[in-house]
Order: sequence, then C-alpha cells, then structure tokens
Amino acid sequence: MYYIGVDIGGTNIKVGVVDSKGEILKKSSFATESKRPYIEIIKDIEITIRSLINGLKINLNDVKAIGVGSPGIIDSNSGTVVYTNNINWENVPLGKELTALTGIPSYVHNDANAAAMGEWKFGMGKGLKDIVLITIGTGVGGGVIINGQLFEGNYSAGAELGHIRLGGEGYPCTCGRTDCFETYSSATALIRFTKQAMEINPDSKMWEYVGKDIDKTNGKTAFECAKLQDKAAIEVVNKYIYYLGEGLANMANIFRPELIILGGGVCAQGEYLTKPLQEHLDRNIYAKGLIPTVKIVTASLGNDAGIIGAAALGIAKHE
Amino acid sequence: MYYIGVDIGGTNIKVGVVDSKGEILKKSSFATESKRPYIEIIKDIEITIRSLINGLKINLNDVKAIGVGSPGIIDSNSGTVVYTNNINWENVPLGKELTALTGIPSYVHNDANAAAMGEWKFGMGKGLKDIVLITIGTGVGGGVIINGQLFEGNYSAGAELGHIRLGGEGYPCTCGRTDCFETYSSATALIRFTKQAMEINPDSKMWEYVGKDIDKTNGKTAFECAKLQDKAAIEVVNKYIYYLGEGLANMANIFRPELIILGGGVCAQGEYLTKPLQEHLDRNIYAKGLIPTVKIVTASLGNDAGIIGAAALGIAKHE
Repeated sequence: MYYIGVDIGGTNIKVGVVDSKGEILKKSSFATESKRPYIEIIKDIEITIRSLINGLKINLNDVKAIGVGSPGIIDSNSGTVVYTNNINWENVPLGKELTALTGIPSYVHNDANAAAMGEWKFGMGKGLKDIVLITIGTGVGGGVIINGQLFEGNYSAGAELGHIRLGGEGYPCTCGRTDCFETYSSATALIRFTKQAMEINPDSKMWEYVGKDIDKTNGKTAFECAKLQDKAAIEVVNKYIYYLGEGLANMANIFRPELIILGGGVCAQGEYLTKPLQEHLDRNIYAKGLIPTVKIVTASLGNDAGIIGAAALGIAKHE
Repeated sequence: MYYIGVDIGGTNIKVGVVDSKGEILKKSSFATESKRPYIEIIKDIEITIRSLINGLKINLNDVKAIGVGSPGIIDSNSGTVVYTNNINWENVPLGKELTALTGIPSYVHNDANAAAMGEWKFGMGKGLKDIVLITIGTGVGGGVIINGQLFEGNYSAGAELGHIRLGGEGYPCTCGRTDCFETYSSATALIRFTKQAMEINPDSKMWEYVGKDIDKTNGKTAFECAKLQDKAAIEVVNKYIYYLGEGLANMANIFRPELIILGGGVCAQGEYLTKPLQEHLDRNIYAKGLIPTVKIVTASLGNDAGIIGAAALGIAKHE
C-alpha cells in the first residue's frame, strides 16, 4: 500500500510517495507561488501526485491516503487551513478539494504536528507512547503524541508550544503577546542574541566568522565560535541554552513524555546542543531525583521529515 | 452502588461515601497527625470507611471503589505516594494497603487531578471532553482531562502546571527553579504582592483592612480594598490578574480545552476575578479572532470538592 505526503511551505511544496514503512519511493517539488488562487496550487499538488504515481507505475487505487502538513492554523477535522500568513490563505478547504480531485481520503494537520507523527512512527519516537517534538526554526513549533495519539486540542489549536510565556525580557512575539518561548528559543532569537553580543563585542571571533558582515550572522555563528572559545560566543550559547532548557523543562513538567525530540537546523550542533540542555533539564525538572528524568534527543528524519511526517498522518489513520 | 472518596491533607483527612451521581451520603474527618507511621494513618482511613458504611447501614460489598486524592508525587499505576512534603511520606503503598485492609479496589491520584475529575464528572466540566483545572492555594496545581480521560503523563508526573516558568522577576519556587507559574499566581504570591504594596504605601486602605497588622494580610485584602478604589490595592490586583491571565493564556495555547476551571479560595471573588482574566485571555490567546476563545469559570463543587473528586476517580473506573 502507498501513501502520499505533502509538505506545504511558503516557497516550495514537496510531494512524495511513501510506503507503509515510511520509505520515500519517489518525490518531487514545485514553487508554491503563493499569490495564485488557492485552487491552482491544489491542482498542482494533484498533478504532482499523479505524475509521481505514473512514474512508479502504480495505480491511484493503491494509494490509501494523502497526508498534508501545512503551516498555520488548521482545522484538522475538516481539513481546512483556517489561516496561514506564509501563503496568505484563509479558510481554504484543502483536504476537501484534494479528495475531490483525487478520490483519496486526505488529512491536513499543522506542519509541527505532522513532524511529530513522522518522528513517532518512523523516527526517534518509534515504539514509544508519549513524545513531544519541538521544531526550532523561524519560530518554535510543537507536536505532541499522547498515548499513541496526536494531541491537538479543540479546533486543532492546542500544542501551540512556541506560544507559552517564558521570560520577562519583553521581546514581542508574532502572536501578539510578548516573551513567548519562540522569542527566546527560535533560530530567529538565537541570531538576535548573536547580533546583540557582536555589537557590544567588536573583538569577538564572531565578526571574522561572518566576514565582518553582521547580516551574514546565522544560527551557527555563536555555536561555531563558542567551539573556538570565543567568550562572547560562549555567553550567547549559554543564554540560548538556558532559555531553551527552561522551555524544555516546562515541556517535561507539562507532558512528562518519554522523550523530547528537537527538530530544525540548530540540531546539527548535536551534543553541543543536547548535552547542556539535558544537564539543564536534569537540574530543573519537577521531582528530580525521585523519578527518572525525560531524555532529550534530536530528530532523525532529516530533510525529508516534512514529506514522511505528512504521509505518517495518513498511515496512522489507515494501517 | 457506592464509592468512597478520601481527601488527604497535611492537617486533616476527609472521608465520604458518595453515590454514582456524586452526592455525598455521609462524611467524616480526622486529624492526620502526620508524624505517625503511615500504616496507622491508613488504618484510620479504613476505620472511618467502615464506620461511615455502618452508619448508612450499607454493606462493604456494595462499595465499588475507593478513590484517594493526595498531595505530592503519586505513581497512580501502583497507587504509591512517591513523595509528599506535607505528610513526609516517601514511597508509601497507599492504594495497596487500603485494598488489603478493605478488599475494595483503590485508586490514588494527585489531589489536583482528583479535583479535575470531580469538576469534570459532577461540576462545571460535566458533559465536556477537554478541561483544564487550575487550583490556586499555597501553590498552583493543575488537572487535565483530555478526550474524557485524566491526563497524567509518565510516572503520573505530567500536568505539573504550577511548575511552568512564567516570568523574569526571579521568585524562587519550592520545586527548585525560579519564576514558576505558582510563584506569581498562588494565594501565597497574591499575599506577597499585597504585603510588598502595603510596605511602600503606608496610606493604603489595606492597612485598615488588616487592623494595622501586616501578618493578617490574606488573599482577600487586595481584592476587597480594590473594590473600595484603593489605588495600591488596585495595582496589586492588576498585577495578580496580569500574571494569572498570562498563565491561563499558556494553558489555552498548550491544551486548547473547552473550559478552564479555577479552584481555590480566591475564586470567592467571582466576577472580580474571572471577568478581567477572561478579557486578558481573549486579548492574548493564540489565533484570537480566528477561532473561538476558551472560557474561564470558577469551580462549583465547593468545600466537598476533595471528597467528590477522589470518589470520581473510582466512579470513572467502575461505571
């Protein structure tokens, strides 16, 4: 049996044919061109699905489900994208249209939820019952599996884990509040901390690392220069680890999952990220020393996580 | 059919016989005398149960379950009190001993979780699927019902909702971290805010309210004097509402329940508490204006909430 995974982004849309073991058999992508009428974009998804299936010489009838991961607020019951600023969609009946065009059941969920399903079925969370996935990118996203079920809350609007107040420094958040988890722990926040430190430390090695051009600062700058023992960079990393560690301690105390899985580019830091985070968590988790702690790991599905996670949404419904 | 609810506190233990509709038929309480060997306390619970049953002229065989709400860290799978500083218990096999003494299945859960079960089965959450209960007392406790099931996480150590970092003012928490939700939103925090305001406002009406004795300050002081338009008291209430509102916005974004139910003495303020909290939530909840908000109400079970909630734990398992 085959499944389709559709990973919707503001720039590109990736589509893959996936088997029941989570292996991608064939994949393709196209430019979103987000300003077009939504039905054109959905028709391009359909065309891409049909082309992949033809390429694999399989039958549309052998595709059991289409899973879609989309940014924004999704009503997963109806498969509607309620709102996403990445593509400027409002109340787009994505699942319904995809099913109408293909005859295949479609399941649309928030992209962080899709990623959590992927890691749970085929990645680091395989075989577990309770995991929390935190995706670190422009913002901070969250996906939660409780007792082997995707937890989404009413209107699929729960698990907005990036939007939990974390500190008191007053950073404004895209959601309208200040001081949300994502204002301290996203890649955007890491880059902001890095630039602030560079501005007050003209001798920092971070300036060399970015070729004297502060606009080339990215999520690696502070981590790489910290490895060179640059003091300012070490301070940036420590601040970032502190707040991300506090956010993960919150996750542990709220959900007490078996595993916290981190996704996003910063995970390339591997143990430079997870080791100090685990230490912070172990020192701060509720009831420390009385019951086992919660382990922190990085996600394993890599670049294809979006497609595999989306496909996993359908696999979970049909296996 | 009958159920027993046992509400364990550091000072008193309350026991009640409850019917399947959540009505208390007969209740009693005794002093915990927490320094005794735990088995003596458990035997006193047994004796109280037998005495209540005899008084009602019913048979022990007609009691289907004993539910127990206990402070502290509870392993609800085994019915063990892992740790509670209120009674100084460590690894007490409470459920097992109670069942051995009575022959009745026993279910032991954290008291905030028991309270959530009570409000869900017989109080404000009746008929709903997803609720969050926040109990405001010496600390802040949390209980979560997801899809009609008590959510506790691994080792029953999840839903520690009082222990989510909320701000940056640096208040130490009993859990070892700083700035937890309960350091801003417990009755203890409200009293601390009130005393701080009194110390810098010698002309505040709050001084009259406590008879010039700052040690008589309680959770009502600021609310009652705010109603008299005392400026310092209004500022205390506003600060308290701000942080509690932020904490509840977190709850809404994490769980997106149908209802947030508040319990504890401060709920006696009624609309003086819930109206500004609802306004704060509506302004700050994720995806505001796009999907309906989450309603905030006060708990309805009152003084007997502990017994009814504990009984509800057993009722949920046996009905």
